[in-house]
Amino acid sequence: MRTLPQTPALDGWLVRAGFTGQQSVFVGDALSRKSWVMATININYEKLCTCYLFPEVTRQLKVFAEKNPGAQLYRLDVSDNTQLSVPTVVNGLTQTSERLSQSNTCGYDRHYQGEEFLRQAIGNHYDERGVKLGLDEIFVNDGAKSDIGNIQTIFGPQNVVAVQDPTYAEYVDTNVMAGRAEAHNSITCQYAGIAYMPCHERNLFFPEPPTQKVDLIYLCCPNNPTGAVATHEQLKSFVEYALKLQAIIIFDASYAAFITDPKLPRSIYEIEDADRCSIEINSFSSSCGFADLRLGWTVVPKNLSTEDAPAGKLNVLWHRRQSTFFNGPSIIAQYCGAAALSPDGRRECQAIVDRTLDNARLIRDALNSRSLVCYGGQHAPYIWAKSPSGMRSLDFFDKLLSEAHVVTLPGSSYGPHGEGFVRLSAFARRECVERASASIKENLRV
Amino acid sequence: MRTLPQTPALDGWLVRAGFTGQQSVFVGDALSRKSWVMATININYEKLCTCYLFPEVTRQLKVFAEKNPGAQLYRLDVSDNTQLSVPTVVNGLTQTSERLSQSNTCGYDRHYQGEEFLRQAIGNHYDERGVKLGLDEIFVNDGAKSDIGNIQTIFGPQNVVAVQDPTYAEYVDTNVMAGRAEAHNSITCQYAGIAYMPCHERNLFFPEPPTQKVDLIYLCCPNNPTGAVATHEQLKSFVEYALKLQAIIIFDASYAAFITDPKLPRSIYEIEDADRCSIEINSFSSSCGFADLRLGWTVVPKNLSTEDAPAGKLNVLWHRRQSTFFNGPSIIAQYCGAAALSPDGRRECQAIVDRTLDNARLIRDALNSRSLVCYGGQHAPYIWAKSPSGMRSLDFFDKLLSEAHVVTLPGSSYGPHGEGFVRLSAFARRECVERASASIKENLRV
Repeated sequence: MRTLPQTPALDGWLVRAGFTGQQSVFVGDALSRKSWVMATININYEKLCTCYLFPEVTRQLKVFAEKNPGAQLYRLDVSDNTQLSVPTVVNGLTQTSERLSQSNTCGYDRHYQGEEFLRQAIGNHYDERGVKLGLDEIFVNDGAKSDIGNIQTIFGPQNVVAVQDPTYAEYVDTNVMAGRAEAHNSITCQYAGIAYMPCHERNLFFPEPPTQKVDLIYLCCPNNPTGAVATHEQLKSFVEYALKLQAIIIFDASYAAFITDPKLPRSIYEIEDADRCSIEINSFSSSCGFADLRLGWTVVPKNLSTEDAPAGKLNVLWHRRQSTFFNGPSIIAQYCGAAALSPDGRRECQAIVDRTLDNARLIRDALNSRSLVCYGGQHAPYIWAKSPSGMRSLDFFDKLLSEAHVVTLPGSSYGPHGEGFVRLSAFARRECVERASASIKENLRV
Repeated sequence: MRTLPQTPALDGWLVRAGFTGQQSVFVGDALSRKSWVMATININYEKLCTCYLFPEVTRQLKVFAEKNPGAQLYRLDVSDNTQLSVPTVVNGLTQTSERLSQSNTCGYDRHYQGEEFLRQAIGNHYDERGVKLGLDEIFVNDGAKSDIGNIQTIFGPQNVVAVQDPTYAEYVDTNVMAGRAEAHNSITCQYAGIAYMPCHERNLFFPEPPTQKVDLIYLCCPNNPTGAVATHEQLKSFVEYALKLQAIIIFDASYAAFITDPKLPRSIYEIEDADRCSIEINSFSSSCGFADLRLGWTVVPKNLSTEDAPAGKLNVLWHRRQSTFFNGPSIIAQYCGAAALSPDGRRECQAIVDRTLDNARLIRDALNSRSLVCYGGQHAPYIWAKSPSGMRSLDFFDKLLSEAHVVTLPGSSYGPHGEGFVRLSAFARRECVERASASIKENLRV
């Protein structure tokens, strides 16, 4: 232990300020790694592309609203699933409120991984698909988005990241902020250092594994924004790649509940040996109609390993990360999650999924009636609509907005291979979808 | 844009696996920064001291319970504030549940910073103390712990961190995980590269500013674990230090509601010019009796600047961080937060604060009756009790556990200057505190 020399500039001021002696003690010499200037920002943020998706769309809508006062908009852009529409969950919420306000227990233990009753219910949910998970492999979280962003923090800064293109912006942005990318190219709309796996009509929007070595592979299936779902064989090829090349798959299964074909995998762990190379993230938001309770889970299997992390280690790292940065999910949300996984809750949640998919059918029908080509919406809550006559995404977005008053999201904002498409969300109230569909049929000039 | 050469080892396997052509495209040459091995872990986690505070205490309690079956324990270690004990908040919860289940609006906008009605209520709360904040300077979060951990991500890896000693472990641990510390010394229990500001009886547990240059200064006031509160003059000396040396103060005011003396500052922004150098983090958990709703807020003033970040920039960076990693707090929790800040809610919350401080008084009285010296508990929910006859923290913890069946936290687990103390929490049910106090008086052999 030693005391660092003070800088001359500091000495003078500190003496003037009346400080004498050594109030603070520095251990080691790591302070010398930095010149004595000031607090500095995370310069990786400077690399971020400045137009961020949702705020930008919000701004454009504001402009439209100002130009068209009183116009009724049909919002099929962001997910409108804040309504608590599952009776069992609403009951669970009310009962939990009462229980918490009357409880008189003395002392409690907090489970950073989530309460056992909920992890057990999630485990049973996997068990039905033939996937066996230990309770300590399941981490309840406050919604998929947080863990999608945070999971990269347990990996080193040098890992090479691969993503689908187009894809949900968070996979890339969180890695850019963590320093795993270089400059953004405003022409290609891509970051140097990130591996983009193109998804297009020819591969039905699901890519093959990279031909180069990458380390962290983000897969979103069913996909946001394209609505594409991988077959068993397609996932198997990624698992083989990851096992062979010691890569880790981060599998975002947030929309798995929308898969209707029983032959399609709902979890990456339905693929043999996927637990040796895959982390899976899931959410209660989209299938259970309670986005605003903020609940999801992440699976970090004990079999997961890489060359520098034997089996079990990544599970321990994630536990450490969660217990340090997170206080555990709300107990109220956890009781509601358990209610959603009860037999009654599941039946009611399935009704929501069915209703959402029926919304998707209506939207697809309306687009088809105007001779527009669209994908997705059969095993996913998103419809991926192709622009007419080679029109660009932003122009098609404008056209749907100005002619049909339907708000979508330009596909190009999800990556360069999203150019020429828009995304429509089926997470809207029925009457909103009905009116939007009618408006597309009546007002869209194609 | 170019395609990277494949490694020989990869080529063979990729050909065997039947991959042909180029499915993925790499932009730039950042991939070359890494040799072609495997996914790697964040090695900073390896530096973390292995005994993590709360799980470790949980483990020791388990051992005690096994040795003493049926023994009634009085838990004054972790905060037992999960009970929803504010009637206005319970009403708010019930009403919000009903509103959400009946809502039939079409479309909505999500505010990553929190709903305006709540930010307005928080702003009014500051206004009463003479502090003017803009709505875009307030970021509602899911509890103070998350932002205490996350705030460091907008700063560069080279910043030197200063913390009080003893202190809440998260300030240090999150910075260790981010690479701002070197090796842990198991004898001093400190990390190289972190500046520790000693808090002891001579300075009444509040330190003076460091005599060396540091960049990020974490201050917890009222302090966890010591219960110490800074005077206006003490905070002013830190603000002067930060302004002079372009450091940033991260001010954790989670327990500010417990300050009873109106002359003591409840917010760092009560100090002139503090908005140019300070971020403040606060929580609804401890003062409003709803820890399990997960709600707090962070203030990042627009006046905040450093030499590489002009005024406004850190506010933008934090907004970007939050909108990328976080989906905004639960709308239910936000309505409950607004209920807690209503006139009725505030009166009821004040009653909880008063009750907690009265709990603290009971605990102090019991300790004093056994001739034990203690600090804190007057403007804070924590009592910092000095071990008798120079006993070490862990021995005093054992003594209180085995003789009085009272569970505390060893002060040494908060840092080396916590050695010789234990922390007792007044966040317990009244009957638990009464029994614990009686047991200390009757059973503790001093």
